This record gives sequence, structure tokens and C-alpha cells, in this order.
Amino acid sequence: MECRIHVITLAVDDLDRALAFYRDGLGLASTGVVGSELHDDHSGADGAIAMFHLDGGLILTVYPRSELAKDAGIAFTPPKSGEFSLGHAVASREQVDNLIDRASSTGGRVLDKPRDRPWGIYSGYFQDPDGHLWEIVHNPALELNPT
Amino acid sequence: MECRIHVITLAVDDLDRALAFYRDGLGLASTGVVGSELHDDHSGADGAIAMFHLDGGLILTVYPRSELAKDAGIAFTPPKSGEFSLGHAVASREQVDNLIDRASSTGGRVLDKPRDRPWGIYSGYFQDPDGHLWEIVHNPALELNPT
Repeated sequence: MECRIHVITLAVDDLDRALAFYRDGLGLASTGVVGSELHDDHSGADGAIAMFHLDGGLILTVYPRSELAKDAGIAFTPPKSGEFSLGHAVASREQVDNLIDRASSTGGRVLDKPRDRPWGIYSGYFQDPDGHLWEIVHNPALELNPT
Repeated sequence: MECRIHVITLAVDDLDRALAFYRDGLGLASTGVVGSELHDDHSGADGAIAMFHLDGGLILTVYPRSELAKDAGIAFTPPKSGEFSLGHAVASREQVDNLIDRASSTGGRVLDKPRDRPWGIYSGYFQDPDGHLWEIVHNPALELNPT
């Protein structure tokens, strides 16, 4: 198995709301909702999805929770937070604070003010409008951030 | 916001089981469980985690569901599948079949045999031992796969 993840798909309740949060709020580039004309007769899943092409080649997509359940063949049940988190590294503590503030002002929910953690990082979490966790991290030791 | 995700953290029930699935089963490189000596007095979260350094710089980690809930400050509730999926692209239909078979033989659960989907891909899903969704995709049009 090649050691690469190419796409992260987030299950969302409202495609337009998620697009607005990530594109208009956080500033990720997207061509908007695509695939609205597609439908999978086998699973019943509709194709409408929004994609964000990230640096490094990773694609982030937002896709309705109901349609992901059909496409993957799992039960459609109420949303739940905490099954995963996405980590975004920045170059300074101030950038952590600023990005958490930005997420908060654009429809995200800040769970915990940024703070030092015993594993050598300064970080804070927010949830997107669907409850998905993002941790914004400054880690001076690991130089996660290539910029 | 720089358009990059640096870390994907999967919530798991059993760190050793998850490590075995991803390292020994799927073949992702890992130094094993680290941070067992760390504890966050503020949140109560333990630091033990396992990391997989993927091609392209992305880090995949597995971290106990209970500890992620403490670290992020959210409620600890039973696991739920379907909040997201991770997409892994391969160069041929045969590689989709082979990887789905490999996941199945090493503790994963195949949800749906690989098949053509109306959005121009051939793909199948499996769940890891914690229920997290992976879609293995061959997409001849998009050339997602850099190898």
C-alpha cells in the first residue's frame, strides 16, 4: 500500500453551509458544488459534492452525510463529533490564536482556548458547523509547517 | 489560512489493535506507540498515540477515543462510523480489488465490493477495526495517484 491519503471527505448536513464555512469563511479555494447531475442507481447516492484542492495535493471534500452513508453502504444515523480530528500547523502561537478567532467569527465553535499542552505544542480546537474537529497547532520542535 | 492539513487523527478504542491493523496489516510505517509517559493535568488526557508518516508529509495518527474527547473538550460517547472517509487512489482496478482484499484479510470489514460508480471511478469501501471508512479508488480521468 502506497503510504498516501489523497482525499478526506467530511460528512455534512448542509452542503451550502459547509461550502460557505470553508470557502467564504476560512478561505479555501473551491469551484463550488459539482456533480449535482450525477446519481448512482445502485446505491441511491446523489453525486453533489464540493471539493477543496489543498497544498501538497490533498483534496478535502464535503459531502452530504446521507449520501456518504448510501455510497459506503452504512446506516444513516445522527451526526456525532469526535471520531477524528484534522490538524493544521502554523508558524507561531499568534497564528494559532488568530485562526481560532477566525473560525469562531465565521460559524465555527471554539471548544477550548489555545493553550500549551504537555506534548510540546500550543494548540486549540474548533468545530466546524457539522461538529468536525480541527486542532490548530504551533509545534516549534517538529516544524510541521513547511512555510 | 494556508491550505494544508498536516495531521489526521483517528479516534480508536484500542491503540494496539489500531497499530496492528495499520502497521502490520496495511504496511504503514510507524515507530509504534509514543508519548505513554505524558499526561495533561488540565484536560486529563493521556499522551499515548501512534503515528504513521505518509508520503507527501501528511501524518496519520491513531489516538484513543476517550483521550481525544478529553483533549478536545467534547463528550465521550459511543463510536460512530460515517462521519468522514479517507480516500486512497491506486493506478488500476486490480489494485483496488487487491487492497480491499488485503484490508479484509487483516481485520478490516468490506462494505461493498468494488464497482464502477457514475462519477467516473471504480472503487470499494472498507472499515478499519474502529469503523472508520476508507474508499479505495481507481480514477483514470483525474490521475489522483502520483505513482
